[in-house]
Formats: sequence, C-alpha cells, structure tokens
Amino acid sequence: MTLEEKLAQIVGFWEKSEGEAVAPLQGEFEEERGLDDVTRDGLGHLTRVYGTRPVDAAERARWLWDKQRWFVTGTRLGIPALVHEECLTGLSAWGAATFPTPLAWGASFDPDLVTRMGELIGGSMRTLGIHQGLAPVLDVIRDPRWGRVDECIAEDPYLVGTLGTSYVRGLQSTGVHATLKHFVGYSASRSGRNFAPVHAGARELADVLLVPFEMAVRDGGVRSVMSSYNEIDGVPVAADPSLLTGLLRDRWGFDGTVVADYFGVAFLQLLHHTARDLGDAAAQALTAGVDIELPTGDAYLGPLAAAVRAGTVDEALVDRAVLRALAQKEELGLLDATFEDAPPTDVDLDSPAHREVAALLAERSLVLLSNDGTLPLAPEARVAVIGPNADRVAALFGCYSFLNHVLAHHPGTPVGIETPTVLEALQREHGGEVTFTQGCAVDDDDRSGLDAAAAAASAADVAVLVVGDHAALFGRGTVGEGCDRDDLELPGVQRALVEAVLATGTPVVLVMLTGRPYAVDWALARCAAAVQAFFPGEEGGPAVAGVLTGRVNPSGRLPISMPRSAGAQPYSYLHPALGGDGDVTNLSTVPALPFGHGLSYTSFTRTNLRVAGGASTSSGLTVTVTVTNTGGRAGADVVQVYGRDVVASVTRPVAQLLGYHRIELAAGQSAEVELAVPAARLAFTDRSGRRVVEPGELQVWVGPSCAQREVETTVELTGGTYAVTPDDPRWSGVTVL
Amino acid sequence: MTLEEKLAQIVGFWEKSEGEAVAPLQGEFEEERGLDDVTRDGLGHLTRVYGTRPVDAAERARWLWDKQRWFVTGTRLGIPALVHEECLTGLSAWGAATFPTPLAWGASFDPDLVTRMGELIGGSMRTLGIHQGLAPVLDVIRDPRWGRVDECIAEDPYLVGTLGTSYVRGLQSTGVHATLKHFVGYSASRSGRNFAPVHAGARELADVLLVPFEMAVRDGGVRSVMSSYNEIDGVPVAADPSLLTGLLRDRWGFDGTVVADYFGVAFLQLLHHTARDLGDAAAQALTAGVDIELPTGDAYLGPLAAAVRAGTVDEALVDRAVLRALAQKEELGLLDATFEDAPPTDVDLDSPAHREVAALLAERSLVLLSNDGTLPLAPEARVAVIGPNADRVAALFGCYSFLNHVLAHHPGTPVGIETPTVLEALQREHGGEVTFTQGCAVDDDDRSGLDAAAAAASAADVAVLVVGDHAALFGRGTVGEGCDRDDLELPGVQRALVEAVLATGTPVVLVMLTGRPYAVDWALARCAAAVQAFFPGEEGGPAVAGVLTGRVNPSGRLPISMPRSAGAQPYSYLHPALGGDGDVTNLSTVPALPFGHGLSYTSFTRTNLRVAGGASTSSGLTVTVTVTNTGGRAGADVVQVYGRDVVASVTRPVAQLLGYHRIELAAGQSAEVELAVPAARLAFTDRSGRRVVEPGELQVWVGPSCAQREVETTVELTGGTYAVTPDDPRWSGVTVL
Repeated sequence: MTLEEKLAQIVGFWEKSEGEAVAPLQGEFEEERGLDDVTRDGLGHLTRVYGTRPVDAAERARWLWDKQRWFVTGTRLGIPALVHEECLTGLSAWGAATFPTPLAWGASFDPDLVTRMGELIGGSMRTLGIHQGLAPVLDVIRDPRWGRVDECIAEDPYLVGTLGTSYVRGLQSTGVHATLKHFVGYSASRSGRNFAPVHAGARELADVLLVPFEMAVRDGGVRSVMSSYNEIDGVPVAADPSLLTGLLRDRWGFDGTVVADYFGVAFLQLLHHTARDLGDAAAQALTAGVDIELPTGDAYLGPLAAAVRAGTVDEALVDRAVLRALAQKEELGLLDATFEDAPPTDVDLDSPAHREVAALLAERSLVLLSNDGTLPLAPEARVAVIGPNADRVAALFGCYSFLNHVLAHHPGTPVGIETPTVLEALQREHGGEVTFTQGCAVDDDDRSGLDAAAAAASAADVAVLVVGDHAALFGRGTVGEGCDRDDLELPGVQRALVEAVLATGTPVVLVMLTGRPYAVDWALARCAAAVQAFFPGEEGGPAVAGVLTGRVNPSGRLPISMPRSAGAQPYSYLHPALGGDGDVTNLSTVPALPFGHGLSYTSFTRTNLRVAGGASTSSGLTVTVTVTNTGGRAGADVVQVYGRDVVASVTRPVAQLLGYHRIELAAGQSAEVELAVPAARLAFTDRSGRRVVEPGELQVWVGPSCAQREVETTVELTGGTYAVTPDDPRWSGVTVL
Repeated sequence: MTLEEKLAQIVGFWEKSEGEAVAPLQGEFEEERGLDDVTRDGLGHLTRVYGTRPVDAAERARWLWDKQRWFVTGTRLGIPALVHEECLTGLSAWGAATFPTPLAWGASFDPDLVTRMGELIGGSMRTLGIHQGLAPVLDVIRDPRWGRVDECIAEDPYLVGTLGTSYVRGLQSTGVHATLKHFVGYSASRSGRNFAPVHAGARELADVLLVPFEMAVRDGGVRSVMSSYNEIDGVPVAADPSLLTGLLRDRWGFDGTVVADYFGVAFLQLLHHTARDLGDAAAQALTAGVDIELPTGDAYLGPLAAAVRAGTVDEALVDRAVLRALAQKEELGLLDATFEDAPPTDVDLDSPAHREVAALLAERSLVLLSNDGTLPLAPEARVAVIGPNADRVAALFGCYSFLNHVLAHHPGTPVGIETPTVLEALQREHGGEVTFTQGCAVDDDDRSGLDAAAAAASAADVAVLVVGDHAALFGRGTVGEGCDRDDLELPGVQRALVEAVLATGTPVVLVMLTGRPYAVDWALARCAAAVQAFFPGEEGGPAVAGVLTGRVNPSGRLPISMPRSAGAQPYSYLHPALGGDGDVTNLSTVPALPFGHGLSYTSFTRTNLRVAGGASTSSGLTVTVTVTNTGGRAGADVVQVYGRDVVASVTRPVAQLLGYHRIELAAGQSAEVELAVPAARLAFTDRSGRRVVEPGELQVWVGPSCAQREVETTVELTGGTYAVTPDDPRWSGVTVL
C-alpha cells in the first residue's frame, strides 16, 4: 500500500451538506472536493450516507451499492468503505423508528428491552449496508446543566454500564459495530459547559467515569470506541496514550478501532492549542491511539502524509492504525464484499416490531414523581391540556434524533414516521372532554397566552400541563449538544405558565417532556401529580396518555437526581459523607427527589433482606429480598440494592447501586429476588492506584430510592484486600426464586 | 521522655469556652478535664489564650505568665507551652486592631503594605507572649459560592502567593511564627460547599493550588503549615504522606511543624470515614506528617498512646513529630524561657500605627466598579444613606475577626476598638445633608422598610446604598466558614431594596461591603456608580467615606472575577480556551467584571510595551511598559502584566498574571515599570509530572484587567524545555525606571 492508500483507509469522507451545519465547526472543515476526487486511493469510512439529509432509503441504498462497487472495481486495492451512521435513539435517518432517549432507558431499568431495541436498530442498519453506529453514549452524568445529558443514560455508572452494554449486545448481534462514546470524561465538563475542561482526578476517572466503558468493552465486546473532545486535568483525551492505548488496549484488551469524535483531531490545534498545526495534531492523535479520523481526513490526509515524509511521524504508527481499520473491515466481511447483490428495495425502518419496542420502552420509562390520587384521570373528567410540549412532535425526541438533528434544517419535509403527540393520544384515549391551549412557547418570553391557559384550566376538572424542553444543537434548543444551562428553571416563561394555571385552583398534573431534570421542587409541592418523561420517542405520546388514563401503570425510576438548583451543581448521589448534609456547611445537598425514586398505581414492600453464605472481598455477596405488590393492581417494581463501605482507605460514597431488577408482579404477588453482587461491584481505586475490594463492614439495603433504607443489614466482607482484574465479573446476576 | 511526655508536646489544649461554639463540632470534643490535670506531662500548644472570649489583655497575660512559669517549674521537663492564636485580619483578641479581610489585601495589590500589617500584628502578639498565628490563608479562590472566600486573597495563585508571603515575612519578622492554611485544596470544595470533596487532578493541584504555598515556604520561610480538612480525589489531605511529607518536606525542604486544622485528625474517623477509630486516625495523620494535633489531643493522647503500646504505630513516628515540635520551641526561645520577666501591663493593641496601616490598606482596597461621574459626590449634595450595612460595625469585618468570630457570642460586650461605620464617617466628612434609612436587614424577608428607603432616596440628590454580607460561622452569617451560598444574589431582600431605590430615579451609588463578589450585573447596569469593599476593617468606614467624597482616589482592583450567576460556577479567569466562550456551548463564561478591573478618579494609559533582550525558558523575560496618569489628579495604577503560552504540551490558560506593580503617579506623570518575570512564573506541569517551561511563542500584554490587551506583544521563548526547581526565583522583580 502506498502512504496515500494507507491514509485513505483511516479517514472518513462527509459530503458537503446543504443548509445549516449539523456538527460543530462543520463549515470550517467541510470537504470542498468531491467524493470521486478524494477516494482515488480508497476510503476508510463513508460518513452518514443516510443521516445527513432526508433521503429515500431505497434510493440512497442504490447510490451506496453503486459507490461500493466503484470502490471494489475502481480503486487499486478494491476495498469498500465502512459506512457509519448516528443511531443513538434509533437509526438517524428519514423514516426510521425513533426510540426513547437514553435517559428514558435509564428510567426503565430494563436491560433486556434495551437489547431488543439495539437488535432492531442494528437490523435496519444492516439492511441498508451500514456497518457501524455511533452509539451508545456511556458518559456518566455528573452535572444536569450540561446539554448532552439527554444523550446519557444515568448518574450511576453501573446503570449506565449495564444498559449501555445491553445496547451494544443488541446492535452487534446483527453484525453492526457499536461505538462507545465519548471515551472519556466528557460529561464532567466544567460547570456543565460543553467541551469545557474536566477537573477530575485519577480515582474519579477510574471509579466512576471509566466503569461503563470497561463493562461495554469486556462484557459487551464492543468493536469501536470514540475518543472524546474534552481534556482531563490539562491533557486532551484524543492525545492521551495512557487512556487510548495503555488502559483501553493494554489493560482491557480492546482490539477494535478507536475513532475520533468529529473534527476532534483538528481540535487539538484549534481548540485545545496543544498542537502547533494539523500535522502535529495528527501525530499526537495517531500516537495516542486514535485510529480513524472522522468525519473527514482534515489532519490524517495531507498534514499526516507530510509529517511522515518529513520523518517526524513514524510510518509504523500509520501501519498500526491501518491494520486495525482493515481488521475491522475484514471482520465486517468488507474485504470480500463485491456488492453485486441487489440493494434493498422494500425497506421498512419503522415496522410493527420497532413500534412495539418503542412503546414498551416509553411506557416503562415514565416516572410518576408525585400523585395525590388525581392520577389516573377519572374517566369522565374534563381535561384541559395546556403547554408547549403537549402537541409538538419534536418534544418527543432527543437531540440526536433525525427529526431534531437533521430535519430541523429542512423545513416542510414531513416527519417520515407516525408520531402522535401527547394531546392527540390523550384525545384518542380519554373518555371525557379534552381541550387544548398552548399557553406559551418552550423558550421565549411571550406571556400573552397565559390568560387563555388559566381560563381553560378554570373550565376543566383537571389541567394536564405538558412542559419541558426542545432538543436541538448548538444553541438552537433548550437541551442537546451545545445547549447548556446555567439555571435549571423550566425554560422560557413555562414556570409562569405553571404558576398561572396553579393559581386557578384546578388540580394540575404536570408532565415534563425533557432531556434533563429541572429544579421544580416548587411545582412538585403544589401540583396534584407530576410525571417525568425523558424524551419518550415515537410512541411517547400514547405512553404518556396511557399513564394519565391508567392504562399503563407507571414503573420508571429516576436515573438521575432531581436537582434543587443550578447553583447546587455539580451534585451526584454517589458522594462521600462530606458531600452531603452536615454541620460544616449551611447548604443542604438533598436533591428535590432522589436517584431511584418513582411511584406506581399500586404499592410495593421490600422485606426479608438477607445475605446468605456471608460475603468476601474476592467473591462478593449474594443478596436476597422479598418484594411484594401490596396494592390492588398489577405493576412493576425496580428492586434496588444499595451498599455503603463503612470504612475504607479512601473516601467512599454514602450510597452506591449494587444491583437492580425490574419485576412485574400481579396484585398481591410476592417474589424473592436474589442478586449475586460480584467483587468488582464493590471495588475502588486505592492509594496505590489498584482497584481493590477491602475487607470490613458493608451496609446493604433495599428501598424505593437511594435515599430510603426500607430493609437493611450489615455484613462483614471477609478475606484480604482483593485486587480485581478486567476478567472479574462485573454484573450483579439476578435470579427470581 | 516518657511516651506521655512526648505526646503532650504534640497536642494543644483548649479550655472549655462559655457560650456558643466557635469551631465546628467543638462541643463534641471539648476537653472536659481542667488544664492542670491535662498538663501534668507538659503541653505542646495553649490554644487561643486571648482569642476564645473577651478578656483584658494585661490580665490575661498575667495568667499566661503564671501558667508558663508553672510549666517551667511544675512539670518534670520544664518546657513552656507554645501559645497560638488566630490572626487573619489582626490578632483575634478583644481590643486588637482589626484590619481589612484578605480579599481586600488582594484588591490592594500592595505586598509592602501587607508586610507592614503583618509586622504590626506580630508585634502585638509577641508582646502578649503569643508564638504562633494561624494565618495567612493561601487557598486560591476557585468558587465564590464557598463561604470562606472572605478569608482568601484572590483567584490568582501569584497574587495569593506574593501577598501571602508578604504577610508571612511581616509576621515572622517579629519572631512570631506564621501558619499557612489550608494545605491544600480546600477552596476547590465541590460546589463551594464547605468541607466537600475536591475534584481535582494532580496538574491543577500543582499549577494552581500549591503555588502560593511553595512561595510562602521557599520565599517566606514560613515556620508552620496547617493540614486542611478536605479530601482530594478520595484521599483526605490530613492522611496523605505524599503531600505533607513527600512534597512539603522532601521536595520543598520545609523543616517547620505541620499542625492539624482543628479536630481535623478526628475528622478522619468522624467525617471522612477513612479511619476505624481515633487511634487509627492518629496513626494515619502522624504517618502522613501531621506533627501537632489541634486544638486538643483527642487522637494524639490516649488513642495514639494505646496504638503505640499495641505496636500498631512505630514510636519513631512520635519521636519525629516531637523533635519538630521541640525544635520549633527552641527556635522560639521557649526551651530557655523562665517567664521570670514581668508580663506586659500597658498593652495598646490598636495603636496609631495600627490605625494608619488599617486605613491605608482599606483605602487602597476599595474597587470603583463603575462611575458615570456621580462620584465623587458633589460637596453640597443631599445624600440619603440607605442599607443594612451602612451603620453596622460588624459589616466592616470578616468572619475570623474577633468581633464576628467570638464577640458575637457575648452580646452586650463593647466592640473594644474604635469602629466608625460608613454612615458615621460620611456624616463627619460630607459637607451636605446626610440622612439614614436602614431599608432592610442583611438576611431576612422583611420588606416593610423599603417604602421609607424609597422616600428617603426621593428626597435626596443621591442615594448611597450600602448593602452586602454579614460574616459569621456555621450558618449564622451570609458569608464565612460554613456560610456557603447556592445563589449569588445579594442576601435577603437587598436586591428588592436596591430595585426600590433605583425606581425612584434618584442616582444610586451602590456600596457593597461583602466577603465574596455577588452576581450584580443587573445593578451595575443601572446604578450611577458602584464601589466594591471587601470587609475593609476598623478604618473601613472612613475609607469608604473618603472614596465617596473624593478625598481618597480609589485604586483597588478586583482580585476575583465578579460572577454572572451561581449556576455559572465554578469559574476562574485562568481557564484554557475551551473554558471560555466559543461555538461549542451556548453559555457565555464572560464574568460581569473581569479579574483586575477597577476604576479611578483619574485615568491611565499603558504604552510602549517591550521585552528587551529576548526571552528564554530558563531565565524568563523582562517586560517594560510606560504607565501615564492622563487625568487631572494624582492616583495609583496597578500595572498588570499578563501572558499566554500559545501552544503547549498541555492546555494552558488564555490569560495568566505574570507580574504586577502598584504605582502612585501625579497628574500627568509617567513612569517606566520593568518587571523581570522569572522562568518559574511561566512553568506548568507537563505530562510526565515535571514543572517545566517549554520553548515557543508567548503573548504578553498589559491592560486595565485580564480581559483587555491595551498593549501587547509576542515573544519567542528560546532554549530547550527547562525544568524549574524549588530554588528557582518565583517573584517578578519590579524596577521603576
């Protein structure tokens, strides 16, 4: 292979898009040359063939097959391109199913369902000739001010790790490679500002931020990892060999490809200022272990070629990346592919199977925050539906949905999938009268509709207020990439709308369709009921209507603490004692609602907690608890087992999720749930840098959230200090007895 | 020495105080036994002999001399106790001069004056038989939400380091030992919550948080260092040998004593939960390098004795601490002292010399934030003075002043020093009519006085609104230890007071007497003028009046950014490019007013910036600039030289203070100021952990704040990468040509 042929295999190509940019600084780099010109020497990745603009999938597939055949026959080496797409909440393409946002997966506590979703997404992608998906996002939430929280799963690394790994398994079971993003630390960006420096030490990195990535690499066998934009304590991750090579490959044994986040190699020069020029940036990223530059070869083509020819970069580093890129293509069958087969013609990207999983996941993700009995709605109640998110399709989707990410730049183009709004679904499902008044927009200062909203509420038995976010990118939304907040009030004048409706005295059911939790303790205290819906996807409208009418018994649990205020951030439930309340600060750290909280239309008790057979540092412990549906209807509980290491050589969190299990129980039914908590679940980084389990007391409890110890016990972890390895099991195995 | 005699030398004793506790959890540990009982075997430290309650200094000195003679004659070893006191804003004792708070030192940019203050404080202490003062605080401000910001000097480590070292030199020139607090990291506590975990990496620690400590150890020759309460990335500092021994002693060569922050050894068990019991806590702290337990021997007496006898702690570690404690006593002359001399009788702790320095420092610390010409006040103007801090003595002082720290628990006791309030001083100094209306309290929700305030403003030519903080401890104040904020609005209903007075249309001069900067951009935009007074001390009232009338030409500069909001925190001007504004987040990081900002009644230009003789990595550079008073009256400018390392191997701040010099200039006068910036000023921690200066481009500029490049140049740092050592000079030498 010539140097040019090698470099071509480790870059992507992104055709110039019409309309507004869909990635940061895209305009600055966008490829001015045409595809044929660029790809004389072959190509590593075709970037977002289906996901850059609304295209007919079958028509685009024909284009793609033609192009791939050209690679096979028209380039010297005859190697087709790897096609990658975004697929966080479903394949990001026109007409493809759009599932709930990752925060909703977190709220569902349902790994199996996430796997099924991954299978469906992968199936669609495979059909279209797509080889790699840029998902899931395994950033552990550290600050709700950050706009990309809507792409994240949870505040707890184990919940992120189990659901993220489930997604990887589902997607990869179809032969499509998943990509873990963003490796690593991005979610801890200072003050929740996108791309801002991460102030974190090595222990926080190892014990919180890296945990889900290790799970998805070791347990999920993920085939690709994306390096993140951020720096950690001064070192940009995309230029850090200790993370991208030392940890990921040498310690964890990862043997797939590391791809750059879009433009992330060039950002070493342009934003981090740790590289002199693009050649230096390329050298640093390549040396660190970034194999593939995406979306285009800004640094890895001309500048890297010049550096290699000048002798400042060892060509062996190029070879290392090329070999990984080619090994991935071989694994995907691309080295033998001829594309002589017919492209797909009859493509259904939103089949009944997709809709069913989208509906189930949406239903299981809805969190009933509070309820004075107003929910479910009385069948004949006159309902005033009010609010900017009640009848808005985009309110159902996250920022990486095709609708909000791409279609927003193509006004007038139909949505392409069936998307009943909350209003439409409630009108269909509710027996009584349903009126609608918008009241206000999501994010402007127009209060002219508040009076009409109050009047509508006054004329009704119940007001259903549907408020929240608009997800978009780079300042165009209230949440999403580059849409950060330095307050956590409901955007725009929505608080005024809620206050105006509350003032009527009509009971208010608050429904929040958001991509982050907001500081709404004032509303929780005054509303008759409140439902948190993290962007619930194409079946989210009916799911919300189902909870409101009672057809669906809510079972979601908060995957993130509901904050008290923006000024109280950052906050995580995983804090040591001094991160909590105490005599040494006047401030309370208690969030408005704790991680794990969520109500049901039935009730549950958790009893008879025991740890049979003792507990040891090397083998962990097995926790058994009885969960009983003590109410009058069937429902699902999420059994949450928490632990606290009472004394350790470093400070440890006052509560940590050790395991969980979502379980459906008929009215009056009981089940015994056994969770085998492995040693790795208890491990932390000691002062010498080893991840260990130390002997001593461990408090274990089960309750309806991290904050409530409904049943508890204390066990002694016996044995010596145990150093866990990447081969140790990480999942808490579940058996329902 | 017996083990008991050894342990007695490494602990303090604090007599049970009457009334409320003046330290966190004090009640939990307070010594129940009497002094004579405890001190049979001798004693390391007598804790706050003068500073625990209001006592007549001469009377207390007699008690102390008696007690010390008893140590000499009544204990087997005959070693007197070391007496320590708080002395952050002056000796914290009844009747002692109370100087401006450290933030005001920062605003003065005047190291020489801080040295003079230190000399005066030390002189008073020496007279009273006090050997060690628990000051200065060298925590670099990282978050204005933290209540202890009022004890800190600045947001910039060089400003903290130079002023802190100046204080150490002044104090120690009298033979009294200074104590650096809090070593290290405390100011970075999560979300500004007191004692909360510090999330920081090794580089931030080395390049920001440790810098002032190294300066005060190496340049100031400080004799004692206090270990801080906080953990960093999971490891409590009081149990961290790498910091307390490896860095402080082995690398920096510190050979004084390390004292624990009060109860900080026991907190390893009680708050950090990294020690099983007090014996374990003692073992960890002693091993790490905490020599002396303060304020009492909760862990280092009985529990440590038991651990030594049980063989779990090597007695050699006790010996190491005892030898350091005795070496310090020898250095202080205590090993030969007989206390046969007469105790002081005629003690003036607030002499004219004290008052003069207190006045100068207060005057130089006042920051004129904005001014439309309303200031100075017209001599005949009718002035309505309004606000809770206008006629309140405690509003002049920080939380570690005797008044707010101790006297607050002794209601009815006179202040003990002359303390004219802003109102009193203005009434004395202003020619026109001066009325007063309080308007509201500092921190309650009573708005009943707002109408009267508005009426008073309406009847006047100018309203002088004096608002701000009340400094106190543990939730009793709006700022101070344990008085943190999760919003940065003016406390209580003070914003409403300001709005009510603004609504009258009478021009408003806003004077803030605070211990932290508040988010008052809304007020800055609407007030005719604004003055920031960080608690200005006993002469603060006349100083503020002097600025208002024009007798004093303001010359203070902001030692900390004025924030936009609590939700935008943490923020530091020392951020790399991605910590600032850009295309990748919608949030602006631009503070309301930048670090270094401050106006004058005259005007200045800075011109003709040059770097003569080039610049090199090992020797730094010499910057020369001409500063001219272009206005109509004499005044002082603070020449501020900033730099930016354009490309480095790790991310570097977009602006960094390289040197500064406060200079008085007559109207029309010019001066050339030369600053020799040493290599260490440019150093940072590279990827291998070495502190280095790298070759390459350095932007250098001078301007009226960090945000404005009035004159700039770019120089090339020549030479190879240079590794700085603790012996390298750290101060930017100043010559006025």
